[in-house]
Amino acid sequence: MADKLLGKQTMRLKSPPVITARATVVGHREGEGPLGEYFDHIIPDDLWGEDTCEKAERKMMEEAITRTMEASDLTPEQIDLFIAGDLLNQIVTSSFVARQVGQAFLGIYGACSSMTEGMALGSMLIDGDYADHVLVATSSHYQTAERQFRFPVELNIQRSGRAQFTVTGSGAAILSKQGKGPRITEVTLGKVIDLGLRNPEDLGSAMAPAAADTLLQHFNDTGRNVGYYDLIITGDLAAVGATMFADLVKEAGHTLGNKHIDAGTMIYGANPRFKAGGSGCGCSAVVFLGYIMKLLEQGRYRRVLFMATGALFSPLSYQQGESIPGVAHAVVVEAQ
Amino acid sequence: MADKLLGKQTMRLKSPPVITARATVVGHREGEGPLGEYFDHIIPDDLWGEDTCEKAERKMMEEAITRTMEASDLTPEQIDLFIAGDLLNQIVTSSFVARQVGQAFLGIYGACSSMTEGMALGSMLIDGDYADHVLVATSSHYQTAERQFRFPVELNIQRSGRAQFTVTGSGAAILSKQGKGPRITEVTLGKVIDLGLRNPEDLGSAMAPAAADTLLQHFNDTGRNVGYYDLIITGDLAAVGATMFADLVKEAGHTLGNKHIDAGTMIYGANPRFKAGGSGCGCSAVVFLGYIMKLLEQGRYRRVLFMATGALFSPLSYQQGESIPGVAHAVVVEAQ
Repeated sequence: MADKLLGKQTMRLKSPPVITARATVVGHREGEGPLGEYFDHIIPDDLWGEDTCEKAERKMMEEAITRTMEASDLTPEQIDLFIAGDLLNQIVTSSFVARQVGQAFLGIYGACSSMTEGMALGSMLIDGDYADHVLVATSSHYQTAERQFRFPVELNIQRSGRAQFTVTGSGAAILSKQGKGPRITEVTLGKVIDLGLRNPEDLGSAMAPAAADTLLQHFNDTGRNVGYYDLIITGDLAAVGATMFADLVKEAGHTLGNKHIDAGTMIYGANPRFKAGGSGCGCSAVVFLGYIMKLLEQGRYRRVLFMATGALFSPLSYQQGESIPGVAHAVVVEAQ
Repeated sequence: MADKLLGKQTMRLKSPPVITARATVVGHREGEGPLGEYFDHIIPDDLWGEDTCEKAERKMMEEAITRTMEASDLTPEQIDLFIAGDLLNQIVTSSFVARQVGQAFLGIYGACSSMTEGMALGSMLIDGDYADHVLVATSSHYQTAERQFRFPVELNIQRSGRAQFTVTGSGAAILSKQGKGPRITEVTLGKVIDLGLRNPEDLGSAMAPAAADTLLQHFNDTGRNVGYYDLIITGDLAAVGATMFADLVKEAGHTLGNKHIDAGTMIYGANPRFKAGGSGCGCSAVVFLGYIMKLLEQGRYRRVLFMATGALFSPLSYQQGESIPGVAHAVVVEAQ
């Protein structure tokens, strides 16, 4: 068996890569939320001076990358690889930004799990000696996602209380072989799990089973339990999904209690305008890279399990009567 | 510098992973082409007994995987990781098939470059000791791609002679740490290149600059030239793109001559019904895994550079006036 495999889905990184730089850019709604002060830049409106929201989303990812590069002591030529994903069809935000980045590019799609998919991949490629510095980025935008997955926001369609609000935001980070900062020590890659849920207005419930499966697999692979971590942060289960996740994990004998928070539940606070809470590739990216990383850097957390979650459907797949499978990938991040 | 980097974008695999099993499934048009005898299964029509072509595409990928597993001596539980991508929005073919595979899943999107993106990633993860066996698959389908990217085929829209015909097909392969078969010895990950081309009817020309960039980078990183390889096979440049690719490479001082073939040019032969030739994630997958692998296994080729190429656009991006960037990833495959 490959000697870095801790268990079926968990890999131990022998020379844990360091998150040496990071930056976050968010929309005005996210900036007005309880975590507003932790984000590096808040854009004034959905268009940010562009003629389409798709271009504004791209500009956000570019801005997050520019700020990440500024926060590092690297030149663009020192980046060996750019890994990125987003929610737009054919991940055009990432692909178009990759032109500007100008380095080797791997496009990924894990829906809202893309940030941990990218961090997991980047970490393994650095630990395996294929790269010294990997740039990872994801983004989402309320208007571009709503009109692609559901309805243009101009139609003002009433949404259910179980629905989530796509976060406008982008997060970027540089993972490095050496340096100062929190380190990625392990990776658990998730399976696609489908309990047959079919409501595109309730993606939290569709993703919760995948989140539970990945966490339980991680515990199984490592022989650990909840107590090992200072914090377990999921991506965007929001209020409905987070409760279901805690219940599923409890059924398997693990009590999360106050060790678990969810990025989608946190980003807007308890504001009912945002229904069950936030979602989107940008949600876990900005909450983890903006807020949790700060607490890791300050030493307030020592060991955090970061698990972004994705709902793997398309408008066409649910119109054709398909259920909505989910996936969750986890990385263990430890303070230096 | 990471000790497996041969150059900026090229990685040497110290323990080259082996392609231990493979299978291909194609549509009837591809089965009637000059490579028909090399494919493992030919489906009788676009629906293959399903009620939508999206379901038929999924069934093709499932069939390619089932046949690949049968060709190996592995149980599904021995697969550590499934890496897959396709052209459909949110890569739903891959995500839905991943439910059936039941192992850890990484979704990728590199448009028609997805097969070499997946093979490159899988190879590095095996060589780096993160997995023993990785299953890689891609697919495309004429009808699902046409209606998503252009027009439903029922409209019978006239297409230009520079246009390409999306291949109906899926290829799957198992990469293993050890075993019998051709080995992946090096990987060159490509940059996103955009010369400003804007015609979605001429994707070959949009991808050719990226193919040239990756090949020249590979030569630069390794100090080699065309003569080192028995064959350089590109993914789906087809007639128009392949000529442009050869011209761009020649301008840089390298003559491809008869060392270069293109999967898109080969799959339908010279039949004018298929315009410039084939394209789609399935094109390079079935031509490489079905035909070229056979010749490598027979020892007729010793060293092949396989470079799939992708056009990174969405219908929305070109409707919004954007150009069409391209990307190409290469793997070096050597006979055992």
